[in-house]
Amino acid sequence: MKLAVDAMGGDHAPKEIVLGVDKALKEFQDIEILLYGDEAEISKYITPRERLNIIHTDEMITGTDEPVRAVRRKKNASMVLMAQSVADGKADACISAGNTGALMTASLFIVGRIEGIERPALAPTLPTLDGKGFLMLDMGANVDAKSEHLVQYAIMGSIYAEKVRGIKNPKVGLLNIGSEPKKGNELTKKTFGLLSDTNIHFIGNVESRDLLDGAADVVVTDGFTGNMVLKTIEGTALSIFSMLKKTLTSSFKTKMAAGLIKNDLKDLKNMLDYSEYGGAGLFGLNAPVIKAHGSSNENALFNAIRQAKTMVENDVSNTIKRAIK
Amino acid sequence: MKLAVDAMGGDHAPKEIVLGVDKALKEFQDIEILLYGDEAEISKYITPRERLNIIHTDEMITGTDEPVRAVRRKKNASMVLMAQSVADGKADACISAGNTGALMTASLFIVGRIEGIERPALAPTLPTLDGKGFLMLDMGANVDAKSEHLVQYAIMGSIYAEKVRGIKNPKVGLLNIGSEPKKGNELTKKTFGLLSDTNIHFIGNVESRDLLDGAADVVVTDGFTGNMVLKTIEGTALSIFSMLKKTLTSSFKTKMAAGLIKNDLKDLKNMLDYSEYGGAGLFGLNAPVIKAHGSSNENALFNAIRQAKTMVENDVSNTIKRAIK
Repeated sequence: MKLAVDAMGGDHAPKEIVLGVDKALKEFQDIEILLYGDEAEISKYITPRERLNIIHTDEMITGTDEPVRAVRRKKNASMVLMAQSVADGKADACISAGNTGALMTASLFIVGRIEGIERPALAPTLPTLDGKGFLMLDMGANVDAKSEHLVQYAIMGSIYAEKVRGIKNPKVGLLNIGSEPKKGNELTKKTFGLLSDTNIHFIGNVESRDLLDGAADVVVTDGFTGNMVLKTIEGTALSIFSMLKKTLTSSFKTKMAAGLIKNDLKDLKNMLDYSEYGGAGLFGLNAPVIKAHGSSNENALFNAIRQAKTMVENDVSNTIKRAIK
Repeated sequence: MKLAVDAMGGDHAPKEIVLGVDKALKEFQDIEILLYGDEAEISKYITPRERLNIIHTDEMITGTDEPVRAVRRKKNASMVLMAQSVADGKADACISAGNTGALMTASLFIVGRIEGIERPALAPTLPTLDGKGFLMLDMGANVDAKSEHLVQYAIMGSIYAEKVRGIKNPKVGLLNIGSEPKKGNELTKKTFGLLSDTNIHFIGNVESRDLLDGAADVVVTDGFTGNMVLKTIEGTALSIFSMLKKTLTSSFKTKMAAGLIKNDLKDLKNMLDYSEYGGAGLFGLNAPVIKAHGSSNENALFNAIRQAKTMVENDVSNTIKRAIK
């Protein structure tokens, strides 16, 4: 299997990206990597070897580039070349930690949508307290979603949860502001009715306050709400941990306590770190595209590569293609 | 000033409601309370006195009642009679910790909308890390909001922040999934343009992850998103504190640490307790209506009464009336 990787995307590129690739090549003997980016920079961190093909380019898309314009104009950007390699059949899937909007644009215009899928969805696996995690989509690929889009997300999410995460008959929930069927806005009320008519395992509405407790295996929502909820969880967790830190350094007594529980608190914080679960999949495309977190380190990138590999092995794109037909 | 209180609404009614009324009567010599509910129950916790008028009724609306049906059929429910007293001019404002949907319905149908206000908004004050708090609206009164509604929320919120919370030239932000003006869905993009043309102090988009850091004094959003974000903050905070508790009781070492920081952690948790900031105002009505939190204790109810009192003193409803004209 061949996987294309954008070496130049993300806050810690190319170093951590390249180290992640290095780790994946060592761990998985059946993958071959096409690595796009600045060869001189890349060579600082990786030694030439079998199954690794470095394709040099000077151009790259930055985090502040306007997505559509960047993809159209920077024809030789590492991210664009990476997507092109998938479109040309040179790679089976691709991974980038770069500009999310640009990656969605490149995926849509270059890798292409599955016929019948109206809007691709961005789908990260988020943490739960029990460590199992859940898939949530869409997280912002499509901010003005219709009910029909949400139904497609539910089908795609369900397939992914079963094929890649190994969950049998995954529970699919609709994110809403109440658990009763008639709760919510026009979009969720209409979607509730449509989801009830599908043959996926739809468990009804789930509320945002129950997400971290593992309310469902797959949670479906529009991109605006999904992005909002993700940022609220992140922001609240960060705020509480920063308050906690302040509390623990406020007096001699609390500093002593802090010393005793330092490692336990670190574990707690790591539990909420969703880079552990790999990157966010872009669903509904002709081939798997993984958006690794912008702050990806070696390990996060390695997990994103493993995720792409599992998606290819389990033929997720074709399964979605058949289900949508 | 006369304030009407529903003695039968909330998880701890009538006891905590009545104790809150008792405290308010002692603290504020210039208020008179009309207290609606079961006289025998109420009399267990309060002694008859000046400035207190207990109006007996057997009927009440429960937390599980369907709002519109309950308000229409239970003509003698404590909450309905309370709203009626405001409509009849017997009271200047009212307070209930009962069924939120029913209170919104009673307010709309009985107390009535200000002419020109299309949709009332539910507006709690939420906590920030610095203890100042911020007003957020709408939290669910109107789940399918239009841009024009959000502009009215911004005007009402700005007046409240200035008149009741004493903030000069309050900063008003639009809740969105990015800070740039062009970010968001159709609703937020259109609202951004309209807000830029008002003479309130509009500071642009604010992101949900910055809310607890005090991104703005007033944050405007549609009722679906507002309710979703509120529940996400609550759920995330609860989950983290429960994980923290588990961590702190996991070993002898952590238990020792827990003993040292118990009180500090309690303070931390209280900082996030928004009942400290009073209840949620229902804005856009002919008179102030306060929705106290369902789990209100004596102190929360007292704060809600103080809030109603301040709104009456500062003539908030009439100021909104003039501003909307």
